[in-house]
Amino acid sequence: MTTSTPEPGTYVEPGEFKRDTNYITTRITADGRDGYPVEPGRYRLIAARACPWANRTLIVRRLLGLESALSLGLCGPTHDKRSWTFDLDPGEVDPVLGIHFLRDAYLKRYPDYPRGITVPAVVDVPTGQVVTNDYAQMTLDFSTEWEEFHRPGAPKLYPKDLRDEIDTVNKRVYTEVNNGVYRCGFAGDQQAYDAAYDRLFTALDWLTERLATQRYLVGDTITEADVRLFTTLARFDPVYHGHFKCNRQKLTELPVLWAYARDLYQTPGFGDTIDFVQIKQHYYIVHTDINPTRIVPKGPELGDWLTPHGRETLGGSAFGDGTAPPPPLPAERVPAGHAPA
Amino acid sequence: MTTSTPEPGTYVEPGEFKRDTNYITTRITADGRDGYPVEPGRYRLIAARACPWANRTLIVRRLLGLESALSLGLCGPTHDKRSWTFDLDPGEVDPVLGIHFLRDAYLKRYPDYPRGITVPAVVDVPTGQVVTNDYAQMTLDFSTEWEEFHRPGAPKLYPKDLRDEIDTVNKRVYTEVNNGVYRCGFAGDQQAYDAAYDRLFTALDWLTERLATQRYLVGDTITEADVRLFTTLARFDPVYHGHFKCNRQKLTELPVLWAYARDLYQTPGFGDTIDFVQIKQHYYIVHTDINPTRIVPKGPELGDWLTPHGRETLGGSAFGDGTAPPPPLPAERVPAGHAPA
Repeated sequence: MTTSTPEPGTYVEPGEFKRDTNYITTRITADGRDGYPVEPGRYRLIAARACPWANRTLIVRRLLGLESALSLGLCGPTHDKRSWTFDLDPGEVDPVLGIHFLRDAYLKRYPDYPRGITVPAVVDVPTGQVVTNDYAQMTLDFSTEWEEFHRPGAPKLYPKDLRDEIDTVNKRVYTEVNNGVYRCGFAGDQQAYDAAYDRLFTALDWLTERLATQRYLVGDTITEADVRLFTTLARFDPVYHGHFKCNRQKLTELPVLWAYARDLYQTPGFGDTIDFVQIKQHYYIVHTDINPTRIVPKGPELGDWLTPHGRETLGGSAFGDGTAPPPPLPAERVPAGHAPA
Repeated sequence: MTTSTPEPGTYVEPGEFKRDTNYITTRITADGRDGYPVEPGRYRLIAARACPWANRTLIVRRLLGLESALSLGLCGPTHDKRSWTFDLDPGEVDPVLGIHFLRDAYLKRYPDYPRGITVPAVVDVPTGQVVTNDYAQMTLDFSTEWEEFHRPGAPKLYPKDLRDEIDTVNKRVYTEVNNGVYRCGFAGDQQAYDAAYDRLFTALDWLTERLATQRYLVGDTITEADVRLFTTLARFDPVYHGHFKCNRQKLTELPVLWAYARDLYQTPGFGDTIDFVQIKQHYYIVHTDINPTRIVPKGPELGDWLTPHGRETLGGSAFGDGTAPPPPLPAERVPAGHAPA
């Protein structure tokens, strides 16, 4: 998500960061009950590689092979108070939607749209209107509502028999980790920060314990739960450790989580969505309230993401009975120099 | 040093941080040629545990056993634009000088003193005037001019036959490391920062190479050169890595330098001067231009400073023919909880 215009009330007493969790909850479903039926070629996913919430959609779309059914527009890593923008495209205009500001697609749907302009968003191409920016429901619907258009061999990321456990894990990972790093970084005072730091590392210690003996968070294969944890872990050392003061240890100093993160990074569909350059630019340039100089750190060195992780010995396999996705479409490859090689 | 009032001109085009290097260069010497002869009980060293430049004087005074000849006043870790202050003392007044603002001792010497109020400073107690704040000369004079009052077994930190080599190493360590971290943290733009980062880590790589095969920087025992490098290394992970964006690696990820730093930390006179709480408070609370929230990170965990370093196998010994200093005076001990235990 990452609002480009932090809402009034984002910072609330006594200093704890509160995320605006009001989204456009219209759903694109197989039965079209909200007026938006699943239909190949009709919708466009708008994401930004920088944003951890949008990153989920990039991974799930890749894993499920939805590339040809659901096109992709990518916003650049930085934005002003108004909107994410398509500044990476020729002429700085999305070639399908024909707009520069993602905000325009929100205003087409709701001319008085009052909240932050967030990614990910799914846009109805014929009308140019945002259908949904409800990032948490979006990837679940990719798994369940778009099933007809999954590639052969696509993994079951949200299998019925594991949903309760996935939901339980996801809830704790969301409040304590995905959002927990922001609670540290945007704490309004020392007391709120101290409490946020303790909550975050308590959760990371719980995850370490859980992942010490099992390869994936739930079951024997990758699921939605792994996608959601991974996008935060990938940003931990480049951004959260320094910029958000989540610095009890680096991820590289937490052996279980670091091996788990490398395992996923090296799994097709995960690491190939990660653009470390854009990730750092986003946080350090956009958050002038905590980094007024807008200077982006050169470190850390990232080569170790490709080193052996040894997690195979725990059993399980990423895709179970399925198969890994093929390499990304040429137009969707992370630029050379933006990831370890 | 650490000026409390950054000078006009501290930031110069094209974005590179320049340190004001004009100090009061009066010297306290054995022959008293500047009007200030070495005399036990006459002078008071004013330092702050937070400040790396002042930290040098704390270490050298301990190593040489100058405690009874030269008394010590300690300023608190934070200060406003005017001055370091004695806010740790009862009534927030230095019990010997009777002042709250260190600035008052500068103004007694020079009523129109125009530059930053810095630590370390040596004050002439009878007149209450600052004699010198020339931190670079100060510790050398402790070694050479105050020799009559060294403790039995005091090490030779600036021995004649090694001075050229010590001076050469000190010069590079000063420009590239001691000041190099500030050049990263106070860079005015991305280009200046990027260049500063490369310079810093080039120097750390050089030091790694040098220290891979020898236990100390110059010769077989500790010298002034080790004191000067140590005070920066001790602050690297708690402050410079995140706050100053010196984040290619943490010190703990640079095995040679990390073992070298632990070796010194565990040497009496070095680690027992380090107050990690005050160090973090100083940088994160005072530098509101790069940390506007003034929130102090809880991390990193520091217990590893006490782990075996294995440097004995390189030969050499900290004090050579001399001896280690006794434990710090009770009144000068770093508070429990401010260092790993």
